[in-house]
Amino acid sequence: MIKDLHFEVAEFQARLRAVKEEMARKGLDILLLSEPPNQNYLTGYNAYSFYTPQMVVVALDHAQPIWIGRFMDRISATMTTYLAEDNIRAYPDTYVQSAALSAYDFMADIVKEVAGEKARIGVEMGGYYYSARAHADLTRALPLAEFVDADLLVGWIRLVKSPAEIGIMRQAGQLADAAMQRVIDTVEAGVRECDIAAAIYHQQVSGTPEFGGDYPCCPPDLCIGERSIAPHAAWTDDPVPDSTVVNLELSGCRHRYQVNLARTIVVGRPSPEFEKLSEIAVESLNAGLDAIRPGRTCSEVDGAFRQALARHGLEKESRIGYPTGIGFPPASGERTASIRKGDETVLQAGMVFHMMPGLWLDTVGVTITQSFAVSDSGFEPLTKTPRKLVIK
Amino acid sequence: MIKDLHFEVAEFQARLRAVKEEMARKGLDILLLSEPPNQNYLTGYNAYSFYTPQMVVVALDHAQPIWIGRFMDRISATMTTYLAEDNIRAYPDTYVQSAALSAYDFMADIVKEVAGEKARIGVEMGGYYYSARAHADLTRALPLAEFVDADLLVGWIRLVKSPAEIGIMRQAGQLADAAMQRVIDTVEAGVRECDIAAAIYHQQVSGTPEFGGDYPCCPPDLCIGERSIAPHAAWTDDPVPDSTVVNLELSGCRHRYQVNLARTIVVGRPSPEFEKLSEIAVESLNAGLDAIRPGRTCSEVDGAFRQALARHGLEKESRIGYPTGIGFPPASGERTASIRKGDETVLQAGMVFHMMPGLWLDTVGVTITQSFAVSDSGFEPLTKTPRKLVIK
Repeated sequence: MIKDLHFEVAEFQARLRAVKEEMARKGLDILLLSEPPNQNYLTGYNAYSFYTPQMVVVALDHAQPIWIGRFMDRISATMTTYLAEDNIRAYPDTYVQSAALSAYDFMADIVKEVAGEKARIGVEMGGYYYSARAHADLTRALPLAEFVDADLLVGWIRLVKSPAEIGIMRQAGQLADAAMQRVIDTVEAGVRECDIAAAIYHQQVSGTPEFGGDYPCCPPDLCIGERSIAPHAAWTDDPVPDSTVVNLELSGCRHRYQVNLARTIVVGRPSPEFEKLSEIAVESLNAGLDAIRPGRTCSEVDGAFRQALARHGLEKESRIGYPTGIGFPPASGERTASIRKGDETVLQAGMVFHMMPGLWLDTVGVTITQSFAVSDSGFEPLTKTPRKLVIK
Repeated sequence: MIKDLHFEVAEFQARLRAVKEEMARKGLDILLLSEPPNQNYLTGYNAYSFYTPQMVVVALDHAQPIWIGRFMDRISATMTTYLAEDNIRAYPDTYVQSAALSAYDFMADIVKEVAGEKARIGVEMGGYYYSARAHADLTRALPLAEFVDADLLVGWIRLVKSPAEIGIMRQAGQLADAAMQRVIDTVEAGVRECDIAAAIYHQQVSGTPEFGGDYPCCPPDLCIGERSIAPHAAWTDDPVPDSTVVNLELSGCRHRYQVNLARTIVVGRPSPEFEKLSEIAVESLNAGLDAIRPGRTCSEVDGAFRQALARHGLEKESRIGYPTGIGFPPASGERTASIRKGDETVLQAGMVFHMMPGLWLDTVGVTITQSFAVSDSGFEPLTKTPRKLVIK
């Protein structure tokens, strides 16, 4: 059977070692990974199957992780992971969305098999794919086990990317640039919003002549006209008016690694006030970027941005950045560090962030952003689209 | 401010009445809806913001639901719901992915405000957006309240669609048909898989000259060659070989209502065995469809399908259908009824299902499906693509 592995097995093993070291430090016998990016990180698994119960089990004294999922998806587990066949376990379809059967009982039996009834088990309490039901079912099925919140255990390890991961993210950045350029070429008065969105998707996925793209973790935020002040609005069928603001966030996704990119595009002639606001946005963004280097904290970078903004009498309500890497729906942002006041995460070479200082005022919004990898001396931009207001 | 409402306010009010009746029957004072489709169903809310904590609160003695979400997304709540401004509540950005602050504390305060500390509260234990952490935080913040699992309370009401909803789903079906036709036109030896996937997205979203499409709940399952037996495989950059099988599931999505469609496409000449298998698949699908009428159970429809299949000595492991309607990532399938043995859900006019009897054998797979609405006397197909193997 084919094997779709995008990293050396040695890299998966190194990731596993780092996770097991952290498990040992926390006294965990078992780590139950419900988050698709963490499953992908440790095994390579990649199929759109995580909407039914699916778990990767790391046992401290078991050489490989164990993948557990739906029967029909075991084929993808064989094709996309480096796991031995007996570490791929599947529950029958009768467990899927059943009122009578819980796939978590099936998983609990495997936990007992590999670590006994009294294991100390880490679970991802705040994950997107660890529902209140999942936790209730597992704790019922394993009454003698001890459950510990290990939500971001793998997330903090994933925060620092390897050279191979950075290589893939450079490609993801190229995909994002190409999609943005496609929009800049496409958008004009009279074009339907849905046709612009369609062009984005087409470009994201068809990619370049050298390589294509994966599905993005989330749709583009294509916010036009009155909706340009609603950061996560849906597009419509309406034609673009003669004179309007387009706030667009999109991404490139390669082998599940996602790089994000946002720009504000003005169709027609921007007002002097709006041009001035966009210049402030870029100046502040650049001030934040210039503050990046290993050893600095996220909070310090945020401070540099806000200081630049404050010189113009402006404040921003929300955080200005988040890490990205392996992403699956619903979101590309890793849930660990934030570039915000009080976040004392120390930057290291290999961390990747989307610096996203959207200025959302009452009646206007400007969003000009930069994804970057922390380098040895500063930052490496992962997209090349110029940091400025686009005027069409 | 603009209002993007796709239904009459009276329809939202009727939905709310049905939900409140069910709440009263279950003795609930409060229903906390974490599922984006349920939020959309009761308020109209639509923005890609559900990856941070977001809730719609239905209080038995409060006239309107209350939307609670992130500060920057309150604009979308105003633009896309019928709610009065004081029923739109937003938490500051400091709550987002914070180790110190929980948005569920903010939500708990609103619950206390509208129903007191001792409310009996329904929550969606099995929902995609009700994490173990959400439940732990809410029960901690509301120690005197009683929590009850009300997971599919709204789901069962949503199962029967109104005429207005069916009207939108007919459009979604047209989008799915157009996307399938685009693939049939595009696929041929030498075309990269990613370029086929790109064409699907482009067509799904650009839609027809009359109306466009929304983002789908999930990517197309474009499973080619060896991956044609892996139902949820990701596409690659590889060119389509001269002779191969393509198993493709895609969708059309209109105002968040999704209709799914799958076909098997053979590039080159199918083997006689494969053609025979596809004929069996269609014959069994049609037998299932012919069994549909109000008053029948899902289990009886499944039985009609399996009987036809068994005549050829075949069995199918998984369920053969699920309902669709309003969908958000990660999945379009509603989690209520399944067309499977033992599911005693009684069909009613207005229910919509995707009958999805993929035959996944060891080395080959065939997937030819039909989305339909239960009509007064049988079924109304929501897509028009002929039910047969496609040969290119």
